[in-house]
Amino acid sequence: MELKDKLNIEGTPPEELKTILSEIPLADIIEEWDTFTPEDELRIMINLPLDDKVDLLNSLSITEQEKLIESLSEQSFNQILSEMDPDDLTDFIQSISPEVRKGVWDSLSDEAKKETLFLLRFDEDDAAGLMTPRYLAVRAGITVAQALSFVRKGASEVETVYYIYILDDFQRLLGVVSLRQLLTAEDNSLINDIMETNYVSVHEETDQEETAKTLETYDLIAIPVLDDRNKLLGIVTFDDIIDVIREEHTEDTYKMGGMTGNVDRYLDSSIWGLVKKRVPWLVILLLLGTFSTNIVGHYTPLMATAAFLFVFMPVITQTGGNSGSQASTLMIRGLATGEIHTRDIFKILLKEIAVGLLMGVITGAVIIARSYFLPPGVGFTQALTIGAALAFVVLFSTLVGTLAPLLINAIGFDPTVMSAPLMSTVIDVAGLTIYFEIAKFLLNIH
Amino acid sequence: MELKDKLNIEGTPPEELKTILSEIPLADIIEEWDTFTPEDELRIMINLPLDDKVDLLNSLSITEQEKLIESLSEQSFNQILSEMDPDDLTDFIQSISPEVRKGVWDSLSDEAKKETLFLLRFDEDDAAGLMTPRYLAVRAGITVAQALSFVRKGASEVETVYYIYILDDFQRLLGVVSLRQLLTAEDNSLINDIMETNYVSVHEETDQEETAKTLETYDLIAIPVLDDRNKLLGIVTFDDIIDVIREEHTEDTYKMGGMTGNVDRYLDSSIWGLVKKRVPWLVILLLLGTFSTNIVGHYTPLMATAAFLFVFMPVITQTGGNSGSQASTLMIRGLATGEIHTRDIFKILLKEIAVGLLMGVITGAVIIARSYFLPPGVGFTQALTIGAALAFVVLFSTLVGTLAPLLINAIGFDPTVMSAPLMSTVIDVAGLTIYFEIAKFLLNIH
Repeated sequence: MELKDKLNIEGTPPEELKTILSEIPLADIIEEWDTFTPEDELRIMINLPLDDKVDLLNSLSITEQEKLIESLSEQSFNQILSEMDPDDLTDFIQSISPEVRKGVWDSLSDEAKKETLFLLRFDEDDAAGLMTPRYLAVRAGITVAQALSFVRKGASEVETVYYIYILDDFQRLLGVVSLRQLLTAEDNSLINDIMETNYVSVHEETDQEETAKTLETYDLIAIPVLDDRNKLLGIVTFDDIIDVIREEHTEDTYKMGGMTGNVDRYLDSSIWGLVKKRVPWLVILLLLGTFSTNIVGHYTPLMATAAFLFVFMPVITQTGGNSGSQASTLMIRGLATGEIHTRDIFKILLKEIAVGLLMGVITGAVIIARSYFLPPGVGFTQALTIGAALAFVVLFSTLVGTLAPLLINAIGFDPTVMSAPLMSTVIDVAGLTIYFEIAKFLLNIH
Repeated sequence: MELKDKLNIEGTPPEELKTILSEIPLADIIEEWDTFTPEDELRIMINLPLDDKVDLLNSLSITEQEKLIESLSEQSFNQILSEMDPDDLTDFIQSISPEVRKGVWDSLSDEAKKETLFLLRFDEDDAAGLMTPRYLAVRAGITVAQALSFVRKGASEVETVYYIYILDDFQRLLGVVSLRQLLTAEDNSLINDIMETNYVSVHEETDQEETAKTLETYDLIAIPVLDDRNKLLGIVTFDDIIDVIREEHTEDTYKMGGMTGNVDRYLDSSIWGLVKKRVPWLVILLLLGTFSTNIVGHYTPLMATAAFLFVFMPVITQTGGNSGSQASTLMIRGLATGEIHTRDIFKILLKEIAVGLLMGVITGAVIIARSYFLPPGVGFTQALTIGAALAFVVLFSTLVGTLAPLLINAIGFDPTVMSAPLMSTVIDVAGLTIYFEIAKFLLNIH
């Protein structure tokens, strides 16, 4: 049974609804959000606990957010805004439409406005674009007991209490103490004696994916962001890093699917918006692909003597494209995870020559058997020709798929541009030449 | 300059090397690991701080781990083992080769053996397969001050101190208190009064990706894992969740690249191992693709009257495949992130009909211009025929790419099986029929 049927939102008095809602996992409500009527959505929103309100709003699409904001009373909306973390608030303000933004901005507290303006200075894709300016900082020279009592007072106002940052008089970061270290230290020891001065940090302009990798390597809950003079600007917490990793995943997937940029919210996107993300690559690949007409056009005289070669063309190019994408996917992923380096190129190439040969022989054998024994069925010589030509195309495609990302990476570009669709288009054109030339040679046609 | 040239590992006395190494970020050492000679690797390993040793070992490939283990003295290796978190230790033991495993097992402490045996009971892909049994648990009824003093004593032995779990006499989870809540509460209040009884948890058999989503929704640092009777088995921490998300990313990428299973470590994989991961899909797609020979074979009589149709075949199937993968990528990703639901199918379909028509018209126009004006060049009627047929193929492919993942998801299967390579193979076969039929109709051939 769906949540909306279980809930009977309209018929339940607000106080009772509050109790019921506080017992349902928020994830379930988010999951089924679009099954509710707009009236029920509003009733749920109003009766959720405050921090769930914030989480719910953050997880809705932009259109849904705006719809909900418009129906909320100013007071309860302001309450939600005041509860949002500064980094989430900044993202939120950047994502909503200019009309809604004006109203949101006016209702912010002076403190929130100041924080937001500070955060808006930084590039979204940099470490500083992810950070919150609310962290626990203490001056050097205090004792553990003093620091602990400070933590207990400040705990409710910061995003994470799990690291305490020790600053000098110029806001420069001297060291970091984890709450765990603070708890296990003697009350009267000095914070300077227990702090980690060889701390891990990122620069404000460190790329967000690089920031993610750093946090991951050290299993940190938060990482400090410093400017050129080591001044502490803010901290990036693990939850924002998880979002970065998810975003990266989505971007990579779209690239592999042959799309430019990011389709943030499919259901919110306009038809023209979707076309704009998809048609450029489609046209580029189409234009590249038309080179194949020049290749095939060149071989049309063969139609009279070896028509079967044209019949097998689609399956040959398809298989070539597939073996090429397999190889390039492995390389691109290996480069991204840092497991493969350009310096391994010869080792990899030798391996892929062997892999390509084996796969060529196997697929060649398969197509010989298939085309000889099953309809439409071709003669044995013809089947052999197709098989041998396919083997060469598979070997060639595997090597192109291997080398292209490695070389693109070596000259300093992002190897993901060599995505599967581009790979198969390039391979189609070159693969067809190999196919026809091998076939001509084997059939003794000049 | 590379790290190995800066370091002069061989010429530096151990004590000095220790100091130098403790000041270099571990991430840099890991990044350049394979530029060191085996002797230098060993010297680095021996002189790293103990927790860096553990992190380094965890981040190496299996072959590298085994190589390093063999060269380490038994004593320093045992020291590393004793420092590993139980969940990492279990993963490590599962990954190493049986010969090495025997030695590792014998050198474990009785406590570590017990913990490992406990964790080995669970499926790697379930929540319980990720958890650590080292968490902070207290009995109900104690005060905040008592709990805090307990935390301060136990802090060094658990993986995270940031949540305290309150258990009853049967180890069942009654509630959770975050360290932050504990710190801000009054010393003499009872833990039962401040604990969250409506806590978020997962079942031991919850799938790891589901577990990741739950932790993310609530921005938790750790999530408790319960059995059927609500007994607390362990906790899953955010760093393991980040690994799950990365792993999922890699798996999805490989699926899109047309590979089965996971290529864990490219450089460690044998040639035959790589072929085994790649050749099955290649052969399946090849066999599916050979249906196109039946289609094209059926139209060979057209070679005499409309040879140009065969010349354009590769670019038509390629473009059809690309528009199909774009649509299916959007659907698969939308379903995975929870943004698209099967119930939106009609809304999506209407949108994609419009998108497919627009993209069909645009690509059609492009190929008409390209094939009319540029070599090899075809007549205007021929160009129009190709353009119109391509428009239909693009529309058709877009709709197949949209519907296939949604329907596969609706009947309860994983839509990622409908990956780009499978999509373009299916579309090739059907698209060629559309292409030739439209062309025949327009050229008035019966």
